[in-house]
Amino acid sequence: MPNTIHIGFLIYPDVTQLDATGPAQILSRMPGAVVHMIWKTEEPVRTDAGFSIMPTDTLESCPNLDVLCVPGGPGQKQLMDDEELLVFLRRQGEGARYVTSVCSGSLLLGAAGLMNGYKATCHWAFREMLPTFGAEPVAERIVKDRNRITGGGVTAGIDFGLALVAELTDEDTAKIIQLSVEYDPHPPFDTGTPEKAGPELEAQARSILENIQTSA
Amino acid sequence: MPNTIHIGFLIYPDVTQLDATGPAQILSRMPGAVVHMIWKTEEPVRTDAGFSIMPTDTLESCPNLDVLCVPGGPGQKQLMDDEELLVFLRRQGEGARYVTSVCSGSLLLGAAGLMNGYKATCHWAFREMLPTFGAEPVAERIVKDRNRITGGGVTAGIDFGLALVAELTDEDTAKIIQLSVEYDPHPPFDTGTPEKAGPELEAQARSILENIQTSA
Repeated sequence: MPNTIHIGFLIYPDVTQLDATGPAQILSRMPGAVVHMIWKTEEPVRTDAGFSIMPTDTLESCPNLDVLCVPGGPGQKQLMDDEELLVFLRRQGEGARYVTSVCSGSLLLGAAGLMNGYKATCHWAFREMLPTFGAEPVAERIVKDRNRITGGGVTAGIDFGLALVAELTDEDTAKIIQLSVEYDPHPPFDTGTPEKAGPELEAQARSILENIQTSA
Repeated sequence: MPNTIHIGFLIYPDVTQLDATGPAQILSRMPGAVVHMIWKTEEPVRTDAGFSIMPTDTLESCPNLDVLCVPGGPGQKQLMDDEELLVFLRRQGEGARYVTSVCSGSLLLGAAGLMNGYKATCHWAFREMLPTFGAEPVAERIVKDRNRITGGGVTAGIDFGLALVAELTDEDTAKIIQLSVEYDPHPPFDTGTPEKAGPELEAQARSILENIQTSA
């Protein structure tokens, strides 16, 4: 039997759920993996996509994690000075084999003091905020610096999840999981970064992101 | 104000959650979109990734859908002759603008009689079962035949979601949402289809898929 690997995703009101559910799907297929969805209470947590996820653990009941992962989302703003939560992230972050994030989750790791002196990435629209927390922004989809692994915006979580499986096990396991989820992406357009999309679409994407922030 | 567009995902015990949560994230950012997660009861629905999703609607309370989407998953086997559910799918499918699926969800649409005479796709491991339901299998990531739009396995739901946004609105809206979720995929490996992965990894991926089926 493979050893148990506890992988914990923080969730919170108005989390961008795909930041967590993408890598959770990938990582759940790794031998020995146990996926945890963690929040302060056991009540359903509403996401920014119109539905709710049930926590599996609270900050107290959560076991020591092998992998801590913080997803991004509009609700994150309310947590940047939430001492109870930051204490949890610091405690788990100190013991975890990997401290990770998807999207703007790297900023919340930063607020907990866990990114100081590390290279990191973030959603393109928020990457410039990384230096506030002593992190060095890198415009790549996945950035690994020692045991910090950060992913870019939302869908980067799938690439991140596969890279993390390869780190935790081996490349063949990651390749098999990639095949099991038929990850042979064919985006219908080529507008996945501001450089590719151009300034007009970038301005409109920023407006969508602000609307999610405001309505949440 | 844009018109409301009701987009409904069937969920069920041991659904492959990314089949639904991937396109739900994309579609939720479309102006006017309301995302529904639908099951028989209002209790949390456990997914095949170790956590549960809350339904937003039951079969009875669900409004008439503009888009019906059926995700795949190991729990689907139990539903193939569930008359209450098949009646729901038929009723919604007759009124919906688009009848859609991700992964093996096309087989459940088929069981409801909704794919007879249509071209369709499915997760690569289950695609050969489509003719059982009168559907013509096509080995593509997204297949559109009249108002049926079917996606391939799991992660195909993200490409599918963007293509559907373009159908329901316009290409620019889809391009802006693609940028907002930074969908510029860089898979760490090139093993997303059996043809690319080769027979040895394919055999192991089939074994993973069977294990998910068995343990669920």
